Amino acid sequence: MGLPRTDPPADASCSIARALEIVGDRWTILILRDAFRGLRRFDELQRDLEIPRAVLSDRLRKLVEAGVLSRRRYQERPDRYEYRLTSMGRQLSPILVALMQWGDRWLSGPRGAPTLLVHDRCGTEVDLGFHCGTCDEDFSPTDITSRPGPGRLGKEPR
Amino acid sequence: MGLPRTDPPADASCSIARALEIVGDRWTILILRDAFRGLRRFDELQRDLEIPRAVLSDRLRKLVEAGVLSRRRYQERPDRYEYRLTSMGRQLSPILVALMQWGDRWLSGPRGAPTLLVHDRCGTEVDLGFHCGTCDEDFSPTDITSRPGPGRLGKEPR
Repeated sequence: MGLPRTDPPADASCSIARALEIVGDRWTILILRDAFRGLRRFDELQRDLEIPRAVLSDRLRKLVEAGVLSRRRYQERPDRYEYRLTSMGRQLSPILVALMQWGDRWLSGPRGAPTLLVHDRCGTEVDLGFHCGTCDEDFSPTDITSRPGPGRLGKEPR
Repeated sequence: MGLPRTDPPADASCSIARALEIVGDRWTILILRDAFRGLRRFDELQRDLEIPRAVLSDRLRKLVEAGVLSRRRYQERPDRYEYRLTSMGRQLSPILVALMQWGDRWLSGPRGAPTLLVHDRCGTEVDLGFHCGTCDEDFSPTDITSRPGPGRLGKEPR
């Protein structure tokens, strides 16, 4: 394009940067939100999101390539496809729940959250948080330390 | 600009869409990651991220306006500023941890995760997950139901 790259580069030493290569786009997250709600077909997604068709097409193709969605033809002549979350895709749910809970807490109007998530069995509101199985207690982000993992590169690339 | 809008619109009925208005940008998430690591100064962030200065400036300004970062001058002539996470900003940590754990699990090479997060007190690896305090058990995303919350609009806007 001749233009300077304004997207962040992939970063082999950071799982957050790697994850953002796949889900670091607003439309992509909204498509995934709809997939979790059970929307599967191109036209359903297009209508719900009011997304330009070419953009939807592009994002779905990338999600299929990444392994997050699977594509299946459900009609011929004309060919129509539906998209379902793979196991890799379903495991994105904590990211969406974390975004939702932060939005609920900080960006809701005075009436409160637009949607509640509850634990099926007992109806208790879901609170995605840090819970230590060893200590059997909830803890806060300030109680977390990071250390190099086995996949850390020998030399920091930057 | 005369060009069609290609970003998703804000959506008053969805906390995920609202949250994405503030943190739905890859550079923004990487800036926040660095803020959690303790980087505070413009030049530190710029060097670590190799981000164009104008882009960094723009993203920091938006994060300050949104209330996620606070800005404080630490030097005069020339004026230099540092940026710290506010309480609203610190509560973004589950989003970053969720992105990291998904990246660790699905995008790490054979050597494993580049970085580990552990519970300070006992050294157990952090596993951000769904835990029900009422049932005293961990549960999976398939055990979650959503229902309208108090802030749901009377009419769906779309």
